[in-house]
Amino acid sequence: MNNLPKKVKIVEVGPRDGLQNEKEPVSAAAKIELVDRLSRAGFANIEAAAFVSPKWVPQMASSSEVMAGITRRPGTIYSALVPNLQGFESALASKADEVVIFGAASEAFSQKNINCSIAESIARFEPVARAAKDHGLRLRGSISTAFGCPYQGEVPLDAVADVVRRMRDLGCDEIDIADTIGVATPRKTQEVMLRAAREFPLESLSGHFHDTYGQALANIYASLEVGVAIFHSSVSGLGGCPYAKGATGNVATEDVLYMMNGLGIETGVDLDQVVDAGLFISQQLGRKGVSRAGNAIAAKRAG
Amino acid sequence: MNNLPKKVKIVEVGPRDGLQNEKEPVSAAAKIELVDRLSRAGFANIEAAAFVSPKWVPQMASSSEVMAGITRRPGTIYSALVPNLQGFESALASKADEVVIFGAASEAFSQKNINCSIAESIARFEPVARAAKDHGLRLRGSISTAFGCPYQGEVPLDAVADVVRRMRDLGCDEIDIADTIGVATPRKTQEVMLRAAREFPLESLSGHFHDTYGQALANIYASLEVGVAIFHSSVSGLGGCPYAKGATGNVATEDVLYMMNGLGIETGVDLDQVVDAGLFISQQLGRKGVSRAGNAIAAKRAG
Repeated sequence: MNNLPKKVKIVEVGPRDGLQNEKEPVSAAAKIELVDRLSRAGFANIEAAAFVSPKWVPQMASSSEVMAGITRRPGTIYSALVPNLQGFESALASKADEVVIFGAASEAFSQKNINCSIAESIARFEPVARAAKDHGLRLRGSISTAFGCPYQGEVPLDAVADVVRRMRDLGCDEIDIADTIGVATPRKTQEVMLRAAREFPLESLSGHFHDTYGQALANIYASLEVGVAIFHSSVSGLGGCPYAKGATGNVATEDVLYMMNGLGIETGVDLDQVVDAGLFISQQLGRKGVSRAGNAIAAKRAG
Repeated sequence: MNNLPKKVKIVEVGPRDGLQNEKEPVSAAAKIELVDRLSRAGFANIEAAAFVSPKWVPQMASSSEVMAGITRRPGTIYSALVPNLQGFESALASKADEVVIFGAASEAFSQKNINCSIAESIARFEPVARAAKDHGLRLRGSISTAFGCPYQGEVPLDAVADVVRRMRDLGCDEIDIADTIGVATPRKTQEVMLRAAREFPLESLSGHFHDTYGQALANIYASLEVGVAIFHSSVSGLGGCPYAKGATGNVATEDVLYMMNGLGIETGVDLDQVVDAGLFISQQLGRKGVSRAGNAIAAKRAG
């Protein structure tokens, strides 16, 4: 058996990637409370905001208010998604520590979603990347549909590698390999992560897995086996899947932490406090969360 | 990376282990329809009945009727749980192909649940084991709480090994290592399975994982890595967890099949037909199933 990393970074994406798929508006106060609870739980990185057009993503319209209202934990990176220079300016003004740019590994997905090629979409981020460097912000690149695409199906390994190189050449400090539609299985996961690692340092690659088909945790375990040590997850499994209504989205943070604890891998995050944060946001949304570990721990507490 | 088995046997336990935890009575006709759908989907082994006191498990009272009503697929093993010789006689009369006996690896669990020691509980099965051999029935031994116990917590590896030996000495053809409360994580899983394999042929050991904490599929993948090639699962995730109300129980068959298909491992089972069977029984129960792959595939079909 391979050695697994002794320590991993969990990037909590619930407040941004999770909540942005929620139809019902969540108040800025509730988002601030959520981020603060997650900060206290010990996350080293929280994706807290997106400075995108409120016409596109109404749920993210309160991002400046959220960033202004949170209590920052020393050492935690608070990230914001930015689609362009205007978004970057807002992220900078809000004192984001890291800005996140994005692109697809699937040409069909890129065309369908942003109406331009992958190459064009990434080239458009050049001014943002330069501005991030100029202002000393961390730059993260997020690559969607790296394991499969709702429009074209298979995504070639070389297409993933190509986007990794483009993101690297823009100066990204960290690159996310995302299974946007949750179709990956463990060996495919290892293949894609290892291919990406030929273009970018493995220790700065992250795995972003969706649990649409229930595979996320197996894929995270398989990623650990090849040395991946950064993972994204969403408290309470916030999110859902825009490509299959009623299906699961982001892997739940509680489930990931439960596994890491069982494997003896250090995360720096307190599972019980994350369960509390999950119960808090579930109450705000008026429904039970989809984290299995979260629900089991809550059920055990209730006796 | 280790080689994974090229082929696995999935034992579908939904009609018995799954349904027996359901409060609302399910008609014999619906159970027959469920088993028939699963047979047509291609399972080599279906746990279809339990000949236990209807006072204990009212849901299983129709077991003789179910076994008499199903259309048997040539080559499929139809299993029945039997707690004693009386149960065995019913299983024999119902033409079960395999009888399942059981014991705990946790002493506290054994005492609490059946009020006797593990050793006594297994010794009591001697007449059943002998009768099974005499009548040419397959004998399977199921070991609960092999990865942890709701009463004593940790379960020593040697305790698991001891029960495996006792089951082997009774003449079991197959032995299940069950995570009754879903607490295992991947490396612990490998450790327990490898320890059990020192006492009994690995190819006849099965992994029975619950998804209480979301770990089941990762544990199945980890089991594959050490050569385990028989797994239990429950269509639509039927079951739930008696030790944490509202938590998940048996791993969902659809999720397991999705992973096996992705890994290129042959199961002989048609995922689409299992999804149909899951939708059928969910409709009977009046609620959405908990298989993530099942729900995602159903959502995609709906468009």
